[in-house]
Amino acid sequence: MCELLGMSANVPTDICFSFSGLMVRGGQTAPHKDGFGVTFYEGKGSRTFKDALPSCESEIAKLIQSYPIKSVCVISHIRQANRGRVSLENTHPFSREMWGQNWTFAHNGQLKGVKKLTTDHFQPVGTTDSEHAFCWLMSQIKAKYPNKPPQDRKTLFRLVAKLAPTLHEMGVANFFLADGRYLFAHCSNNLHWLTRRAPFGVASLSDVEMTVDFQQETTPNDIVTVIATKPLTTNEDWYKMAPQEYQLFDLGEPIKL
Amino acid sequence: MCELLGMSANVPTDICFSFSGLMVRGGQTAPHKDGFGVTFYEGKGSRTFKDALPSCESEIAKLIQSYPIKSVCVISHIRQANRGRVSLENTHPFSREMWGQNWTFAHNGQLKGVKKLTTDHFQPVGTTDSEHAFCWLMSQIKAKYPNKPPQDRKTLFRLVAKLAPTLHEMGVANFFLADGRYLFAHCSNNLHWLTRRAPFGVASLSDVEMTVDFQQETTPNDIVTVIATKPLTTNEDWYKMAPQEYQLFDLGEPIKL
Repeated sequence: MCELLGMSANVPTDICFSFSGLMVRGGQTAPHKDGFGVTFYEGKGSRTFKDALPSCESEIAKLIQSYPIKSVCVISHIRQANRGRVSLENTHPFSREMWGQNWTFAHNGQLKGVKKLTTDHFQPVGTTDSEHAFCWLMSQIKAKYPNKPPQDRKTLFRLVAKLAPTLHEMGVANFFLADGRYLFAHCSNNLHWLTRRAPFGVASLSDVEMTVDFQQETTPNDIVTVIATKPLTTNEDWYKMAPQEYQLFDLGEPIKL
Repeated sequence: MCELLGMSANVPTDICFSFSGLMVRGGQTAPHKDGFGVTFYEGKGSRTFKDALPSCESEIAKLIQSYPIKSVCVISHIRQANRGRVSLENTHPFSREMWGQNWTFAHNGQLKGVKKLTTDHFQPVGTTDSEHAFCWLMSQIKAKYPNKPPQDRKTLFRLVAKLAPTLHEMGVANFFLADGRYLFAHCSNNLHWLTRRAPFGVASLSDVEMTVDFQQETTPNDIVTVIATKPLTTNEDWYKMAPQEYQLFDLGEPIKL
Protein backbone atom coordinates (compact mmCIF):
# COMPACT_ATOMS: atom_id res chain seq x y z
CA MET A 1 0.00 0.00 0.00
CA CYS A 2 0.98 3.60 -0.38
CA GLU A 3 -0.16 6.96 0.86
CA LEU A 4 -1.42 9.94 -1.06
CA LEU A 5 -1.34 13.64 -0.23
CA GLY A 6 -2.87 16.36 -2.37
CA MET A 7 -3.44 20.07 -1.97
CA SER A 8 -5.62 22.58 -3.79
CA ALA A 9 -5.50 26.27 -2.84
CA ASN A 10 -6.75 29.63 -4.08
CA VAL A 11 -3.38 31.30 -3.47
CA PRO A 12 0.06 29.73 -3.88
CA THR A 13 0.59 27.91 -0.59
CA ASP A 14 3.43 25.75 0.67
CA ILE A 15 2.85 22.18 1.78
CA CYS A 16 5.78 21.91 4.24
CA PHE A 17 3.52 21.15 7.25
CA SER A 18 1.43 18.37 5.68
CA PHE A 19 4.46 17.01 3.85
CA SER A 20 6.35 16.69 7.15
CA GLY A 21 3.50 14.58 8.50
CA LEU A 22 3.50 12.36 5.44
CA MET A 23 7.26 11.90 5.15
CA VAL A 24 7.72 10.21 8.52
CA ARG A 25 5.28 7.57 7.31
CA GLY A 26 7.92 6.76 4.69
CA GLY A 27 9.83 4.25 6.79
CA GLN A 28 9.49 5.70 10.30
CA THR A 29 5.90 5.75 11.66
CA ALA A 30 4.66 3.62 8.75
CA PRO A 31 6.31 1.20 6.32
CA HIS A 32 6.04 3.16 3.04
CA LYS A 33 9.77 3.06 2.50
CA ASP A 34 10.03 2.45 -1.23
CA GLY A 35 10.35 5.97 -2.49
CA PHE A 36 8.35 9.15 -2.61
CA GLY A 37 7.49 11.90 -5.03
CA VAL A 38 5.83 15.30 -5.05
CA THR A 39 4.66 17.46 -7.93
CA PHE A 40 4.22 21.22 -7.55
CA TYR A 41 2.39 23.25 -10.16
CA GLU A 42 3.61 26.81 -10.54
CA GLY A 43 1.80 28.72 -13.27
CA LYS A 44 1.65 26.55 -16.38
CA GLY A 45 4.81 24.79 -15.28
CA SER A 46 5.32 21.98 -12.85
CA ARG A 47 8.21 20.23 -11.19
CA THR A 48 8.39 16.83 -9.63
CA PHE A 49 10.83 15.81 -6.93
CA LYS A 50 11.34 12.06 -6.63
CA ASP A 51 13.52 9.67 -4.74
CA ALA A 52 13.57 5.88 -4.63
CA LEU A 53 15.02 6.13 -1.09
CA PRO A 54 12.77 6.03 1.99
CA SER A 55 11.37 9.54 2.44
CA CYS A 56 12.40 9.60 6.11
CA GLU A 57 16.06 9.32 4.96
CA SER A 58 15.93 11.30 1.72
CA GLU A 59 17.96 14.51 1.31
CA ILE A 60 15.41 15.59 -1.26
CA ALA A 61 12.51 15.06 1.16
CA LYS A 62 14.41 17.12 3.73
CA LEU A 63 14.73 19.96 1.22
CA ILE A 64 11.00 19.89 0.43
CA GLN A 65 10.13 20.00 4.12
CA SER A 66 12.28 23.06 4.75
CA TYR A 67 12.03 24.94 1.44
CA PRO A 68 8.57 26.48 1.00
CA ILE A 69 7.63 25.97 -2.65
CA LYS A 70 4.30 27.74 -3.13
CA SER A 71 1.70 26.19 -5.37
CA VAL A 72 -2.08 26.11 -5.94
CA CYS A 73 -1.97 22.40 -6.77
CA VAL A 74 0.26 19.70 -5.29
CA ILE A 75 0.24 15.91 -5.56
CA SER A 76 2.44 13.72 -3.40
CA HIS A 77 2.88 10.00 -2.84
CA ILE A 78 4.92 7.68 -0.65
CA ARG A 79 5.33 4.16 -1.85
CA GLN A 80 5.33 0.69 -0.40
CA ALA A 81 6.07 -1.41 -3.44
CA ASN A 82 3.80 -4.29 -4.38
CA ARG A 83 3.72 -4.24 -8.21
CA GLY A 84 6.96 -3.11 -9.83
CA ARG A 85 10.40 -3.02 -8.21
CA VAL A 86 11.78 -0.12 -6.17
CA SER A 87 13.16 2.26 -8.76
CA LEU A 88 12.80 5.81 -9.99
CA GLU A 89 10.64 4.87 -12.99
CA ASN A 90 8.14 3.20 -10.65
CA THR A 91 7.95 6.17 -8.29
CA HIS A 92 4.77 8.30 -8.35
CA PRO A 93 3.57 10.88 -9.32
CA PHE A 94 3.61 10.17 -13.03
CA SER A 95 3.20 12.93 -15.57
CA ARG A 96 2.45 13.43 -19.24
CA GLU A 97 1.83 16.41 -21.49
CA MET A 98 -1.57 16.58 -23.22
CA TRP A 99 -2.77 19.61 -25.25
CA GLY A 100 0.24 21.58 -23.99
CA GLN A 101 -0.65 21.01 -20.34
CA ASN A 102 1.16 18.93 -17.75
CA TRP A 103 -1.04 16.16 -16.31
CA THR A 104 -0.09 14.39 -13.10
CA PHE A 105 -1.31 11.17 -11.51
CA ALA A 106 -0.69 9.30 -8.27
CA HIS A 107 -2.42 6.15 -7.06
CA ASN A 108 -2.87 4.01 -3.98
CA GLY A 109 -4.06 0.41 -4.36
CA GLN A 110 -3.57 -2.64 -6.53
CA LEU A 111 -5.32 -3.10 -9.88
CA LYS A 112 -5.58 -6.70 -11.01
CA GLY A 113 -5.57 -7.13 -14.77
CA VAL A 114 -5.08 -3.43 -15.50
CA LYS A 115 -2.39 -4.24 -18.06
CA LYS A 116 -5.06 -5.72 -20.31
CA LEU A 117 -6.42 -2.20 -20.79
CA THR A 118 -4.97 -0.76 -23.97
CA THR A 119 -2.81 2.32 -23.90
CA ASP A 120 -2.31 4.18 -27.12
CA HIS A 121 -1.01 7.74 -27.13
CA PHE A 122 0.67 7.33 -23.76
CA GLN A 123 2.92 4.39 -22.83
CA PRO A 124 4.21 3.42 -19.39
CA VAL A 125 7.92 3.91 -18.71
CA GLY A 126 7.98 1.73 -15.57
CA THR A 127 6.20 -1.49 -14.65
CA THR A 128 3.61 -0.42 -12.07
CA ASP A 129 -0.10 -1.06 -12.44
CA SER A 130 -0.56 2.60 -11.42
CA GLU A 131 1.32 4.12 -14.35
CA HIS A 132 -0.48 1.73 -16.70
CA ALA A 133 -3.82 2.93 -15.31
CA PHE A 134 -2.71 6.54 -15.82
CA CYS A 135 -1.66 5.90 -19.43
CA TRP A 136 -5.00 4.18 -20.09
CA LEU A 137 -6.97 7.10 -18.56
CA MET A 138 -4.98 9.63 -20.58
CA SER A 139 -5.29 7.58 -23.79
CA GLN A 140 -9.07 7.41 -23.29
CA ILE A 141 -9.29 11.17 -22.78
CA LYS A 142 -7.05 11.86 -25.77
CA ALA A 143 -9.10 9.50 -27.97
CA LYS A 144 -12.22 11.49 -27.12
CA TYR A 145 -10.59 14.93 -27.39
CA PRO A 146 -7.60 14.39 -29.71
CA ASN A 147 -6.68 18.00 -30.45
CA LYS A 148 -8.01 20.16 -27.67
CA PRO A 149 -9.90 19.83 -24.41
CA PRO A 150 -13.65 20.46 -24.16
CA GLN A 151 -14.45 24.11 -23.39
CA ASP A 152 -15.80 23.31 -19.95
CA ARG A 153 -13.21 21.52 -17.85
CA LYS A 154 -16.05 19.88 -15.88
CA THR A 155 -17.03 17.97 -19.04
CA LEU A 156 -13.53 16.54 -19.07
CA PHE A 157 -13.58 15.45 -15.44
CA ARG A 158 -17.04 13.93 -15.90
CA LEU A 159 -15.33 11.65 -18.44
CA VAL A 160 -12.70 10.75 -15.82
CA ALA A 161 -15.52 10.00 -13.35
CA LYS A 162 -17.08 7.68 -15.94
CA LEU A 163 -13.77 5.87 -16.48
CA ALA A 164 -12.93 5.47 -12.78
CA PRO A 165 -15.29 2.50 -12.12
CA THR A 166 -13.30 0.41 -14.63
CA LEU A 167 -10.27 0.84 -12.39
CA HIS A 168 -12.23 0.45 -9.15
CA GLU A 169 -13.56 -2.92 -10.31
CA MET A 170 -9.99 -4.17 -10.74
CA GLY A 171 -9.13 -3.68 -7.10
CA VAL A 172 -8.39 -0.49 -5.23
CA ALA A 173 -8.31 2.82 -7.08
CA ASN A 174 -7.67 5.69 -4.73
CA PHE A 175 -6.13 8.20 -7.09
CA PHE A 176 -5.45 11.84 -7.94
CA LEU A 177 -5.43 13.32 -11.42
CA ALA A 178 -4.47 16.98 -11.85
CA ASP A 179 -3.99 19.42 -14.69
CA GLY A 180 -2.38 22.17 -12.66
CA ARG A 181 -5.53 23.98 -11.63
CA TYR A 182 -8.05 21.20 -11.04
CA LEU A 183 -7.42 18.21 -8.83
CA PHE A 184 -9.68 15.18 -9.24
CA ALA A 185 -9.74 12.67 -6.36
CA HIS A 186 -11.32 9.22 -6.60
CA CYS A 187 -11.83 7.00 -3.56
CA SER A 188 -12.07 3.21 -3.57
CA ASN A 189 -11.63 2.64 0.15
CA ASN A 190 -9.42 5.20 1.83
CA LEU A 191 -9.28 8.93 1.20
CA HIS A 192 -9.99 11.91 3.48
CA TRP A 193 -10.06 15.65 2.97
CA LEU A 194 -10.63 18.91 4.77
CA THR A 195 -10.84 22.54 3.74
CA ARG A 196 -9.15 25.19 5.85
CA ARG A 197 -10.49 28.74 5.66
CA ALA A 198 -10.94 31.73 7.99
CA PRO A 199 -11.16 31.72 10.93
CA PHE A 200 -8.00 29.63 10.90
CA GLY A 201 -6.86 27.70 13.94
CA VAL A 202 -4.05 25.57 15.22
CA ALA A 203 -3.39 22.12 13.76
CA SER A 204 -1.27 19.31 15.22
CA LEU A 205 0.24 16.53 13.15
CA SER A 206 -0.54 12.98 14.20
CA ASP A 207 2.79 11.42 13.15
CA VAL A 208 5.31 13.91 14.42
CA GLU A 209 5.32 16.49 17.16
CA MET A 210 4.58 19.54 15.09
CA THR A 211 1.94 22.23 15.41
CA VAL A 212 1.14 25.14 13.15
CA ASP A 213 -1.04 28.18 13.80
CA PHE A 214 -2.52 28.79 10.36
CA GLN A 215 -3.73 32.23 11.45
CA GLN A 216 -0.08 33.33 11.49
CA GLU A 217 0.55 31.84 8.05
CA THR A 218 -2.48 32.92 6.06
CA THR A 219 -4.64 35.85 5.01
CA PRO A 220 -8.40 35.82 5.71
CA ASN A 221 -9.20 35.06 2.06
CA ASP A 222 -7.08 31.92 1.81
CA ILE A 223 -8.85 28.65 1.10
CA VAL A 224 -6.81 25.46 1.19
CA THR A 225 -8.00 21.88 0.82
CA VAL A 226 -5.78 18.97 1.84
CA ILE A 227 -6.61 15.43 0.70
CA ALA A 228 -4.81 12.46 2.25
CA THR A 229 -5.10 8.68 2.57
CA LYS A 230 -5.35 8.99 6.34
CA PRO A 231 -5.99 12.20 8.32
CA LEU A 232 -2.70 13.98 8.95
CA THR A 233 -3.82 16.00 11.96
CA THR A 234 -5.42 14.99 15.25
CA ASN A 235 -7.51 18.06 16.07
CA GLU A 236 -9.38 18.74 12.83
CA ASP A 237 -12.44 17.13 11.25
CA TRP A 238 -11.49 15.22 8.14
CA TYR A 239 -14.23 14.14 5.77
CA LYS A 240 -13.97 10.44 4.92
CA MET A 241 -14.88 9.75 1.30
CA ALA A 242 -17.16 6.82 0.50
CA PRO A 243 -16.24 3.96 -1.85
CA GLN A 244 -16.53 5.13 -5.47
CA GLU A 245 -17.03 8.72 -4.39
CA TYR A 246 -15.11 11.26 -6.40
CA GLN A 247 -14.52 14.94 -5.87
CA LEU A 248 -13.13 17.71 -8.04
CA PHE A 249 -11.23 20.55 -6.36
CA ASP A 250 -10.64 23.96 -7.91
CA LEU A 251 -8.58 26.64 -6.19
CA GLY A 252 -9.12 25.12 -2.76
CA GLU A 253 -12.88 24.53 -3.06
CA PRO A 254 -14.69 21.25 -3.67
CA ILE A 255 -16.88 21.75 -6.74
CA LYS A 256 -19.78 19.74 -8.12
CA LEU A 257 -19.42 17.82 -11.34
CA MET B 1 21.98 33.12 -24.37
CA CYS B 2 22.16 30.13 -22.14
CA GLU B 3 24.67 27.46 -21.23
CA LEU B 4 24.44 23.72 -21.67
CA LEU B 5 26.08 20.92 -19.73
CA GLY B 6 25.76 17.24 -20.55
CA MET B 7 27.35 14.06 -19.32
CA SER B 8 27.55 10.53 -20.69
CA ALA B 9 29.28 7.78 -18.68
CA ASN B 10 29.74 4.01 -18.71
CA VAL B 11 29.11 3.75 -14.97
CA PRO B 12 26.71 5.85 -12.90
CA THR B 13 28.71 8.97 -12.12
CA ASP B 14 27.85 12.12 -10.23
CA ILE B 15 28.08 15.53 -11.87
CA CYS B 16 28.70 17.60 -8.71
CA PHE B 17 32.09 18.93 -9.89
CA SER B 18 31.01 20.09 -13.37
CA PHE B 19 27.68 21.29 -12.03
CA SER B 20 29.47 23.49 -9.47
CA GLY B 21 31.37 25.12 -12.32
CA LEU B 22 28.20 25.73 -14.28
CA MET B 23 26.05 27.00 -11.44
CA VAL B 24 28.21 30.03 -10.63
CA ARG B 25 27.64 31.13 -14.23
CA GLY B 26 23.97 31.40 -13.25
CA GLY B 27 24.15 34.99 -12.01
CA GLN B 28 27.65 35.15 -10.50
CA THR B 29 30.51 34.72 -13.01
CA ALA B 30 28.09 34.98 -15.95
CA PRO B 31 24.62 36.47 -16.42
CA HIS B 32 22.52 33.31 -16.92
CA LYS B 33 20.27 34.18 -14.03
CA ASP B 34 16.85 33.19 -15.33
CA GLY B 35 16.58 29.70 -13.97
CA PHE B 36 18.28 26.36 -14.33
CA GLY B 37 17.40 22.72 -14.69
CA VAL B 38 19.09 19.34 -14.64
CA THR B 39 17.81 15.92 -15.67
CA PHE B 40 19.35 12.73 -14.29
CA TYR B 41 18.58 9.37 -15.83
CA GLU B 42 18.64 6.46 -13.41
CA GLY B 43 17.72 3.15 -15.03
CA LYS B 44 14.60 3.66 -17.15
CA GLY B 45 13.54 6.49 -14.88
CA SER B 46 14.59 10.10 -14.84
CA ARG B 47 14.14 13.09 -12.61
CA THR B 48 14.45 16.75 -13.39
CA PHE B 49 15.28 19.43 -10.86
CA LYS B 50 14.27 22.93 -11.94
CA ASP B 51 14.18 26.40 -10.50
CA ALA B 52 13.22 29.72 -12.04
CA LEU B 53 15.58 31.40 -9.54
CA PRO B 54 19.22 32.19 -10.42
CA SER B 55 21.19 28.99 -9.94
CA CYS B 56 23.80 30.76 -7.80
CA GLU B 57 21.02 31.52 -5.26
CA SER B 58 18.87 28.39 -5.59
CA GLU B 59 18.44 26.00 -2.67
CA ILE B 60 17.79 23.27 -5.21
CA ALA B 61 21.05 23.98 -7.05
CA LYS B 62 22.85 23.82 -3.69
CA LEU B 63 21.37 20.38 -3.06
CA ILE B 64 22.45 19.10 -6.49
CA GLN B 65 26.00 20.35 -5.92
CA SER B 66 26.33 18.56 -2.60
CA TYR B 67 24.18 15.45 -3.12
CA PRO B 68 25.88 13.00 -5.50
CA ILE B 69 23.12 11.64 -7.75
CA LYS B 70 24.78 9.02 -9.94
CA SER B 71 23.71 8.69 -13.54
CA VAL B 72 25.02 7.52 -16.93
CA CYS B 73 23.27 10.38 -18.71
CA VAL B 74 22.71 13.94 -17.49
CA ILE B 75 21.49 17.09 -19.22
CA SER B 76 21.67 20.50 -17.59
CA HIS B 77 20.93 24.07 -18.64
CA ILE B 78 21.17 27.55 -17.17
CA ARG B 79 19.02 30.17 -18.75
CA GLN B 80 19.32 33.78 -19.74
CA ALA B 81 15.85 34.49 -21.05
CA ASN B 82 15.36 35.95 -24.51
CA ARG B 83 12.20 34.26 -25.85
CA GLY B 84 9.60 33.46 -23.19
CA ARG B 85 9.35 35.02 -19.73
CA VAL B 86 11.19 33.76 -16.66
CA SER B 87 8.99 30.96 -15.36
CA LEU B 88 9.09 27.28 -14.54
CA GLU B 89 7.35 26.22 -17.77
CA ASN B 90 10.05 28.00 -19.78
CA THR B 91 12.91 26.39 -17.88
CA HIS B 92 14.97 23.68 -19.63
CA PRO B 93 15.41 20.71 -19.86
CA PHE B 94 12.07 19.76 -21.39
CA SER B 95 10.88 16.18 -21.40
CA ARG B 96 8.29 13.98 -23.07
CA GLU B 97 7.51 10.28 -23.07
CA MET B 98 7.71 8.46 -26.43
CA TRP B 99 7.41 4.66 -26.83
CA GLY B 100 7.56 4.31 -23.05
CA GLN B 101 10.88 6.14 -22.80
CA ASN B 102 11.63 9.54 -21.28
CA TRP B 103 13.13 11.94 -23.83
CA THR B 104 14.91 15.09 -22.71
CA PHE B 105 15.97 18.23 -24.58
CA ALA B 106 17.88 21.39 -23.76
CA HIS B 107 18.86 24.17 -26.14
CA ASN B 108 21.09 27.22 -26.41
CA GLY B 109 20.36 29.82 -29.07
CA GLN B 110 17.49 31.67 -30.70
CA LEU B 111 15.41 30.16 -33.49
CA LYS B 112 13.61 32.70 -35.63
CA GLY B 113 10.34 31.47 -37.09
CA VAL B 114 10.47 28.09 -35.34
CA LYS B 115 6.84 28.44 -34.29
CA LYS B 116 5.81 28.03 -37.93
CA LEU B 117 7.02 24.42 -37.73
CA THR B 118 4.05 22.22 -36.95
CA THR B 119 3.90 20.15 -33.80
CA ASP B 120 1.47 17.30 -33.68
CA HIS B 121 1.80 14.57 -31.07
CA PHE B 122 3.71 16.83 -28.69
CA GLN B 123 2.64 20.35 -27.76
CA PRO B 124 4.65 23.02 -25.94
CA VAL B 125 3.59 23.89 -22.39
CA GLY B 126 5.60 27.12 -22.22
CA THR B 127 6.36 29.82 -24.77
CA THR B 128 10.04 29.31 -25.61
CA ASP B 129 11.34 28.71 -29.12
CA SER B 130 13.39 25.86 -27.59
CA GLU B 131 10.43 23.80 -26.35
CA HIS B 132 8.68 24.37 -29.68
CA ALA B 133 11.76 23.03 -31.49
CA PHE B 134 11.77 19.99 -29.18
CA CYS B 135 8.07 19.29 -29.82
CA TRP B 136 8.65 19.59 -33.56
CA LEU B 137 11.64 17.20 -33.45
CA MET B 138 9.68 14.69 -31.38
CA SER B 139 6.60 14.99 -33.61
CA GLN B 140 8.76 14.34 -36.67
CA ILE B 141 10.30 11.26 -35.08
CA LYS B 142 6.91 9.98 -33.91
CA ALA B 143 5.41 10.53 -37.38
CA LYS B 144 8.14 8.33 -38.86
CA TYR B 145 8.06 5.70 -36.10
CA PRO B 146 4.55 5.97 -34.62
CA ASN B 147 4.46 2.78 -32.55
CA LYS B 148 8.02 1.73 -31.79
CA PRO B 149 11.55 2.92 -32.42
CA PRO B 150 13.72 1.47 -35.21
CA GLN B 151 15.72 -1.55 -34.06
CA ASP B 152 19.03 0.26 -34.36
CA ARG B 153 19.08 3.40 -32.24
CA LYS B 154 21.64 4.90 -34.68
CA THR B 155 18.94 4.93 -37.38
CA LEU B 156 16.88 7.10 -35.06
CA PHE B 157 19.65 9.58 -34.34
CA ARG B 158 20.48 9.75 -38.05
CA LEU B 159 16.94 11.09 -38.45
CA VAL B 160 17.65 13.69 -35.75
CA ALA B 161 20.85 14.64 -37.59
CA LYS B 162 18.79 15.10 -40.77
CA LEU B 163 16.28 17.33 -38.97
CA ALA B 164 18.89 19.48 -37.18
CA PRO B 165 19.77 21.70 -40.20
CA THR B 166 16.17 22.96 -40.30
CA LEU B 167 16.70 24.35 -36.80
CA HIS B 168 20.25 25.56 -37.52
CA GLU B 169 18.99 27.61 -40.46
CA MET B 170 16.61 29.46 -38.15
CA GLY B 171 19.39 30.83 -35.99
CA VAL B 172 21.45 29.07 -33.37
CA ALA B 173 20.75 25.45 -32.51
CA ASN B 174 23.20 24.16 -29.96
CA PHE B 175 21.16 21.39 -28.38
CA PHE B 176 21.09 18.07 -26.55
CA LEU B 177 18.55 15.30 -27.07
CA ALA B 178 18.74 12.23 -24.84
CA ASP B 179 16.78 9.03 -24.35
CA GLY B 180 18.46 7.94 -21.13
CA ARG B 181 21.31 6.00 -22.65
CA TYR B 182 22.25 7.95 -25.77
CA LEU B 183 23.00 11.65 -25.76
CA PHE B 184 22.92 13.50 -29.09
CA ALA B 185 24.68 16.87 -29.24
CA HIS B 186 24.31 19.33 -32.12
CA CYS B 187 26.50 22.42 -32.48
CA SER B 188 25.59 25.61 -34.30
CA ASN B 189 28.36 27.80 -32.94
CA ASN B 190 29.39 26.92 -29.40
CA LEU B 191 29.79 23.47 -27.89
CA HIS B 192 32.84 21.69 -26.45
CA TRP B 193 33.44 18.23 -25.09
CA LEU B 194 36.11 16.02 -23.56
CA THR B 195 36.33 12.39 -22.53
CA ARG B 196 38.01 11.46 -19.28
CA ARG B 197 39.45 7.95 -18.96
CA ALA B 198 42.42 6.26 -17.27
CA PRO B 199 44.99 7.46 -16.47
CA PHE B 200 42.88 10.09 -14.72
CA GLY B 201 44.39 13.36 -13.55
CA VAL B 202 43.56 16.49 -11.66
CA ALA B 203 41.09 19.03 -13.08
CA SER B 204 40.56 22.65 -12.01
CA LEU B 205 37.36 24.55 -12.63
CA SER B 206 37.64 27.87 -14.45
CA ASP B 207 34.75 29.64 -12.69
CA VAL B 208 35.29 28.73 -9.08
CA GLU B 209 38.29 27.66 -7.05
CA MET B 210 37.74 23.94 -7.05
CA THR B 211 39.98 21.07 -8.01
CA VAL B 212 39.24 17.38 -8.21
CA ASP B 213 41.64 14.46 -8.52
CA PHE B 214 39.64 12.05 -10.66
CA GLN B 215 42.05 9.23 -9.84
CA GLN B 216 40.64 9.26 -6.30
CA GLU B 217 37.06 9.25 -7.56
CA THR B 218 37.13 6.66 -10.32
CA THR B 219 38.04 3.10 -11.22
CA PRO B 220 40.41 2.40 -14.18
CA ASN B 221 37.52 1.30 -16.39
CA ASP B 222 35.46 4.49 -16.02
CA ILE B 223 34.81 6.52 -19.15
CA VAL B 224 33.07 9.86 -18.77
CA THR B 225 32.35 12.48 -21.41
CA VAL B 226 31.38 16.01 -20.46
CA ILE B 227 29.85 18.36 -23.04
CA ALA B 228 29.51 22.07 -22.30
CA THR B 229 28.90 25.38 -24.05
CA LYS B 230 32.26 26.66 -22.84
CA PRO B 231 35.09 24.58 -21.35
CA LEU B 232 34.53 24.19 -17.61
CA THR B 233 38.13 23.44 -16.66
CA THR B 234 41.39 25.28 -17.32
CA ASN B 235 43.90 22.43 -17.51
CA GLU B 236 42.24 19.95 -19.86
CA ASP B 237 41.94 19.85 -23.65
CA TRP B 238 38.35 20.42 -24.73
CA TYR B 239 37.37 19.61 -28.29
CA LYS B 240 35.54 22.50 -29.94
CA MET B 241 32.74 21.31 -32.22
CA ALA B 242 32.39 22.89 -35.65
CA PRO B 243 29.20 24.60 -36.90
CA GLN B 244 26.63 21.94 -37.87
CA GLU B 245 28.74 19.19 -36.39
CA TYR B 246 26.82 16.64 -34.36
CA GLN B 247 27.98 13.84 -32.12
CA LEU B 248 26.25 10.90 -30.51
CA PHE B 249 27.50 9.67 -27.13
CA ASP B 250 26.85 6.22 -25.70
CA LEU B 251 28.04 5.20 -22.24
CA GLY B 252 30.78 7.83 -22.18
CA GLU B 253 32.13 7.21 -25.68
CA PRO B 254 31.60 9.30 -28.82
CA ILE B 255 30.19 6.98 -31.48
CA LYS B 256 29.87 7.34 -35.24
CA LEU B 257 26.49 7.72 -36.85
